Amino acid sequence: MSQRVDLRFNDRPVRVPLGVTLFDAASWNGIAIDSTCGGHGTCKKCRIRFKADAPLPTSLDLRAYTAQEIKDGWRLACRTPATTDADIEVPPLTTRPKAATVGVGRQVILRPAVIKRYLELSEPTLTDQVTDLERVLAELADLNPAPDLAVLRTLGGTLRRADFKVTAVVADETLIAVEEGDTSGRVYGLAFDLGTTTVVAALLDLTTGTPVAVESMLNKQQPFGADVIARISATMLDPAAGDKLRQLAQDTLAELSHAVLKAGGVPPEEVYEVALAGNATMVHLVLGIDPEPLGVAPFIMAARLLPEVRAGDLGVPAHPQARAVVFPAFGAYVGGDITAGLLASGMDRDPRVRLFIDIGTNCEIVLGGRDWLLATAAPAGPAFEGASIRCGMRAADGAIEAVTITEDGELKLTVIGDTEPAGLCGSGLVDAVAALVEAGVIDSSGRFVRDADVAPGLAGRLTMIGKERVFVLHWSADRDPASSVYLSQRDIRELQFAKTAISTGWQILLEEAGLTTEDVKQVLLAGSFGSYLSAKSAIRIGLVPDVGPRRIVAAGNVAGEGAKMALLSVRDRAAALALLEEVRYVELSDRPDFNDRFIDQLGF
Amino acid sequence: MSQRVDLRFNDRPVRVPLGVTLFDAASWNGIAIDSTCGGHGTCKKCRIRFKADAPLPTSLDLRAYTAQEIKDGWRLACRTPATTDADIEVPPLTTRPKAATVGVGRQVILRPAVIKRYLELSEPTLTDQVTDLERVLAELADLNPAPDLAVLRTLGGTLRRADFKVTAVVADETLIAVEEGDTSGRVYGLAFDLGTTTVVAALLDLTTGTPVAVESMLNKQQPFGADVIARISATMLDPAAGDKLRQLAQDTLAELSHAVLKAGGVPPEEVYEVALAGNATMVHLVLGIDPEPLGVAPFIMAARLLPEVRAGDLGVPAHPQARAVVFPAFGAYVGGDITAGLLASGMDRDPRVRLFIDIGTNCEIVLGGRDWLLATAAPAGPAFEGASIRCGMRAADGAIEAVTITEDGELKLTVIGDTEPAGLCGSGLVDAVAALVEAGVIDSSGRFVRDADVAPGLAGRLTMIGKERVFVLHWSADRDPASSVYLSQRDIRELQFAKTAISTGWQILLEEAGLTTEDVKQVLLAGSFGSYLSAKSAIRIGLVPDVGPRRIVAAGNVAGEGAKMALLSVRDRAAALALLEEVRYVELSDRPDFNDRFIDQLGF
Repeated sequence: MSQRVDLRFNDRPVRVPLGVTLFDAASWNGIAIDSTCGGHGTCKKCRIRFKADAPLPTSLDLRAYTAQEIKDGWRLACRTPATTDADIEVPPLTTRPKAATVGVGRQVILRPAVIKRYLELSEPTLTDQVTDLERVLAELADLNPAPDLAVLRTLGGTLRRADFKVTAVVADETLIAVEEGDTSGRVYGLAFDLGTTTVVAALLDLTTGTPVAVESMLNKQQPFGADVIARISATMLDPAAGDKLRQLAQDTLAELSHAVLKAGGVPPEEVYEVALAGNATMVHLVLGIDPEPLGVAPFIMAARLLPEVRAGDLGVPAHPQARAVVFPAFGAYVGGDITAGLLASGMDRDPRVRLFIDIGTNCEIVLGGRDWLLATAAPAGPAFEGASIRCGMRAADGAIEAVTITEDGELKLTVIGDTEPAGLCGSGLVDAVAALVEAGVIDSSGRFVRDADVAPGLAGRLTMIGKERVFVLHWSADRDPASSVYLSQRDIRELQFAKTAISTGWQILLEEAGLTTEDVKQVLLAGSFGSYLSAKSAIRIGLVPDVGPRRIVAAGNVAGEGAKMALLSVRDRAAALALLEEVRYVELSDRPDFNDRFIDQLGF
Repeated sequence: MSQRVDLRFNDRPVRVPLGVTLFDAASWNGIAIDSTCGGHGTCKKCRIRFKADAPLPTSLDLRAYTAQEIKDGWRLACRTPATTDADIEVPPLTTRPKAATVGVGRQVILRPAVIKRYLELSEPTLTDQVTDLERVLAELADLNPAPDLAVLRTLGGTLRRADFKVTAVVADETLIAVEEGDTSGRVYGLAFDLGTTTVVAALLDLTTGTPVAVESMLNKQQPFGADVIARISATMLDPAAGDKLRQLAQDTLAELSHAVLKAGGVPPEEVYEVALAGNATMVHLVLGIDPEPLGVAPFIMAARLLPEVRAGDLGVPAHPQARAVVFPAFGAYVGGDITAGLLASGMDRDPRVRLFIDIGTNCEIVLGGRDWLLATAAPAGPAFEGASIRCGMRAADGAIEAVTITEDGELKLTVIGDTEPAGLCGSGLVDAVAALVEAGVIDSSGRFVRDADVAPGLAGRLTMIGKERVFVLHWSADRDPASSVYLSQRDIRELQFAKTAISTGWQILLEEAGLTTEDVKQVLLAGSFGSYLSAKSAIRIGLVPDVGPRRIVAAGNVAGEGAKMALLSVRDRAAALALLEEVRYVELSDRPDFNDRFIDQLGF
């Protein structure tokens, strides 16, 4: 049986993974099917009809439909898996939701937590002394929200100035605002990817799902160290550092927010919800939670699931009552950014076994699919960020980002910004090592081969700086190796340790699952590094399992996409929470088999 | 059948109103019966046994007990009414609650919302990486609280400094604190009666129910006017007045809190919950809610039930996460102080028809019993506070508080502080008018009679000041009526209008209920004024129905007592909320029959 099935929804052909429910299959492709229960089989509204060859009805179908309807092919979409090609009729919706494309080509049906509703209320009289709040709530009975005290403080004046024509703003189960007149067309949200290095903010129009503006900048916490361990250590050395780090993270979010709000021409008070994805350390720091137990064995988080957080708790300019959705973390080193990434890449819905890798100083690895997920974290160190590499640099103008050696032994470099090469970024490093392994300049143990064994075209490039052997990638004008861009023997060792930490991680997860490389149908590389990495080189050095280059997919900034999805769809938000229960965290640091596996994986 | 039944619980005799449940009857008398469901018939723990003559079992009894147990007299206390005298066995408790006396002789079984629990937790390891929060929550599974973000911020350090031996503080469904070591013996609450004139604070030890310290002072809002209308008007004239009034109310609460905390030697952070009863205007003002719609027809509150409020929202010094219970109001002029008063006086439990009257500028009147309650508000004006009375004064030293005329026509005065009379307070005013009506000096229409018709012993006291007739109660040294303490014809009219507003109120409630004065079994006079008022005089002038002086009961500061009960018992707190649904508010200001009734009631 094929891993994909071909469906037609109202004559529109779509191809979906085998085994997903028809409800999800339609949702992913932007075809809306009625539902109020979120696919739990209780509302019985997700009616679809098989034009032919309907599957056997489930017990729920038998309760939802008459015998004639069952015979006619009617089934509940949320309980029917896509097992064979099928031609399906979807009835018109009673309400028409909109959809937006986010994540890894995912279509999200818009159902934000924030709902605005324009109300024209009757005015109170001596025979109708219903309170102001109950007058508003009576029109929101289907949402049944609880009020914020802040709403009550000004409600009387608002209603009377507006002649009792107002817009109620309900976020989840809370009435967060009542505004004069009809403001129902203005609903915005801010989605953040709070990275250790880079922070990204997106302003979303929640009425359309459209991103209005996107900005990114370096995390202002950088002076406290490049990685999470450095920042946690700072709080352990200086009791005031925690407050400073919180303030810097919040300043970063605030500055980005102001930038996207300005670009979109949106005032802060029209932002009614915020979503944030970040690793556990970033989330602890930005919320002012003591991060120390994260940084020392046995690596304990304050909480997996966070209590209610407001935009103000993150320092984000927004409506004063705006709530913040902060993605929950699986473990101290597999954080909410990964939860968001799994959501955006559909790891919770796709029945195929896939491998999700977010490469960084700390590398998060998740293996599995809809039915089970295993996660771990591997300490890869800073090699991929160029930090411990002699000629290493960030992926900025002048960085060599790709290296190839042609069959006739010619070295070709691709440089960011098309300028003179100034250094080597992470993807260039992987490419350089892969190319030199392929060309026989580096042997399988990771050592430069003897000069005599190098192909003539490359031979001159293998030289010495002091006592260390180096391979010059780009000669400086004076042809002094020390001022050229080169790869050193130590650089190779750094990369070798980094890639081995990662490959040991996914190797152990495969063993835990009782699977081998052949079972992995796709490798998703999350983050910007994944976008630049050559799939072929990554396979060549053993960073990823050899599933063939076409199955190595750059997933992009999935953490940010997941944050957007949380704003656009309460259903997807709930799915992210559900992931918390579905993922099993595998701790590597106390495994007796770790060193054996590590040595197994060390070679090229 | 008598209105009272005599019961024996474990050989202790108690007399209770006919028809109350045996569970409530025992609770009121401090006899604890097991229960976890709060008398809803679901936990089946409130086992009692009739030693003889058991009533017919209910369907719940039949489900809770075996046939033999039914035969032996076992019944569920929460579903069995006290209909006849009975001798009852109460089994020993599985847990032993404590009781405290509050309210109108009510015994409250202690079950505060704040629960402290000392925990000795296992320390995390690499094979037990449960988060800090989940480690704590695992020990609180029966309470299932949600955490505050503030708890998370410091949880890691707290656990580790205390070697994982900590005390969890749960308020209702929230984990509000985790403290180092065992602090379970220190749990305090603050109960406030926020009156327009006087504010009272009580510090309660929630582990014993004991009041540790009580203080009262004048409401600092006084400069903005004596009554609620004056204060609401202030906010309408000056946009800044609302903030000032909020600040003054909060300053009053804070000053009282500091006084009782100092007296009790209790630090603010050991106060984990606060309860406040106040009229609707006071509650709006202290919470910063716009009060304007309360002050103008059709008199609309922002809300009946308030959203979650924290001690900090009231300006009260307490644990930063302490919640505040603010009593809900029935209507704009029957506020949370009345809800609290009804709770404290057991109006929600007693099957008898009773009349609850809280006399003040605005007079709240509630008629009914366990099965139904009617409420209204009557604008009595300031006569009872002495404000519109020529020689009126507050009930302070020098105020005439009681007046009698002996059979031989001698006038006797009782003066607060046993000093020279300086004026007339509310109870003295009522007494003076009642005595003069009785003595024939005032006729039934409220006019002073002709000089010739006055008894000889009193005749000289009826004289003129300018064009107004006055009756001198206490001559000044110079025997000038104008510098003496006297009652004027206009004073009588003021009192007459005030008492008529009130009696029209209860008269209309009686008519609404289809009852007459004879049906009223007790009149409860709430507030300090009620404590000083002579029952006989109140009946004589028609302020209260003539049910006989012994059935007129001074209930004291029932608002403050109700606030205490809310802190001591979640069950009673829930009962106060339930009252909101049980009381029907009768608006007087638009009734076509109001003027007729008013004129009917005007005479003495």
